[in-house]
Amino acid sequence: MLTEDKKILIVGLGLIGGSYAQALKRKGWYVGAITRSQASIDYALAQGFIDTGTTEVSEEAVAQYDLIVFALYPNVLLKWLQTNQKYIKSGAVLTDVTGVKAKVVYKVQAMLRPDLEFVGAHPMAGREVYGVRNADCSIFNGANYIVTPTEANTEPAISEIEELGRVLGFARISRLSPERHDEMIGFLSQLTHCIAVALMTCRDVEHMSAYSGDSFRDLTRIARINDEMWSELFLLNRDTLLQQIDMFTEQMGRIRSAVAQGDSGLLRELMRLSTARRALFDK
Amino acid sequence: MLTEDKKILIVGLGLIGGSYAQALKRKGWYVGAITRSQASIDYALAQGFIDTGTTEVSEEAVAQYDLIVFALYPNVLLKWLQTNQKYIKSGAVLTDVTGVKAKVVYKVQAMLRPDLEFVGAHPMAGREVYGVRNADCSIFNGANYIVTPTEANTEPAISEIEELGRVLGFARISRLSPERHDEMIGFLSQLTHCIAVALMTCRDVEHMSAYSGDSFRDLTRIARINDEMWSELFLLNRDTLLQQIDMFTEQMGRIRSAVAQGDSGLLRELMRLSTARRALFDK
Repeated sequence: MLTEDKKILIVGLGLIGGSYAQALKRKGWYVGAITRSQASIDYALAQGFIDTGTTEVSEEAVAQYDLIVFALYPNVLLKWLQTNQKYIKSGAVLTDVTGVKAKVVYKVQAMLRPDLEFVGAHPMAGREVYGVRNADCSIFNGANYIVTPTEANTEPAISEIEELGRVLGFARISRLSPERHDEMIGFLSQLTHCIAVALMTCRDVEHMSAYSGDSFRDLTRIARINDEMWSELFLLNRDTLLQQIDMFTEQMGRIRSAVAQGDSGLLRELMRLSTARRALFDK
Repeated sequence: MLTEDKKILIVGLGLIGGSYAQALKRKGWYVGAITRSQASIDYALAQGFIDTGTTEVSEEAVAQYDLIVFALYPNVLLKWLQTNQKYIKSGAVLTDVTGVKAKVVYKVQAMLRPDLEFVGAHPMAGREVYGVRNADCSIFNGANYIVTPTEANTEPAISEIEELGRVLGFARISRLSPERHDEMIGFLSQLTHCIAVALMTCRDVEHMSAYSGDSFRDLTRIARINDEMWSELFLLNRDTLLQQIDMFTEQMGRIRSAVAQGDSGLLRELMRLSTARRALFDK
């Protein structure tokens, strides 16, 4: 149970870590932070997002916390735990915010002290801007939150991480295996980012903004992309992402053939199917 | 000049025709309508979108108008003119709202009486709903409007159709040749609709809405699509659209290779380029 006396540590005070801190502090939890930049700590303290923060990892900075949220890049998360898990209080529950799971969750669980428990989670919310100065916990309202338990997890810890999602304000909390999560996200999120980048870079678009409608703006909003984070996420989910790209490209080829052959019957059939399916996402 | 004493006829009272009527009537013009459904006329009269309307094409219904806007499917437009241009007042200026131009504008101009003038225009605004009951002229605010003159046009008539765009509330009025228009729209609008339909139909997505973030919703908003209109527009712009699909698919292939080979350098380069370019569309 995520009782109110539990102390929560956020490791990595960026857009997501900062928004977690803001939401949790507002709801009354004691929130600490560890992050690389003192300026981020100062900002979060001034805004009342955290009770305390430090740039130095030490037993003093870590050992008091019952729940630790890692809002770090996947590779940084693994290194952090290798070096610093010795400081964590026995029985603490750990979670993350990473956008890929299979390549992260099992590795973390395999290296973790047996008296700690790590439950993966993916808050499906974000913005095109970065850093704690853009933190805003309202981005979680109405969004989806996926918990990715494995056989290494216990029901109480899984429930606690689901409760965290509810406390943060997410609308739908789901459980998926890490593999199933990665397939969903490979399609719903990574493939869409590939498409946006391809659309924005496949030809010179510099003089086109006077001629665009909403559709192009919609499809390329996410073309503003954190290249360091997303390239890491793509490669951590390589095989699954390739499958999604191939499935999509094959369908584009089918549409291309229909256009080339003037097959308006097939075009209209696909359009009617897409129209019907899209309605499912407008609820 | 689009002087206030000019009478304006809207042929085709759907979402776009109805929104034109609403905007023009509000600004004080006399607006008539011809459309197939009496219910649409009744609705538009009750809402004050038009001064008069009829389902019957006749000299009486047509001959009094100085400016005629055709808000019809391209093929319907050509047939309408073949049958009914005899009723149009000498010296009248005609325009349309069609999403493709080269295959429409030259045909119309070639068949038109020499004492009439047709200037093509494309209002880049729309909604995912149809019909005059969804008409709402606020969709034009901030949107783009493209006029596609040819050598058959005169400067006064071109200016009048540009003025129409300003009166309707469009933010940016541009002039492009029909061919250049179709290339822009093939990329910015038709390709994006192909992508949305492909994304929505390339795999079973029925159980996915609990796992989607904003990106999938953004990329598929336009997957709700009028299959009759869009299949016609695609086929009227076939060669240009195929070129745009190929350019995009080639770039998706480049991204696929980078993922397959773990080439994060290339991925990051493309992401930085797309991020920089996207900023041009956020103005």
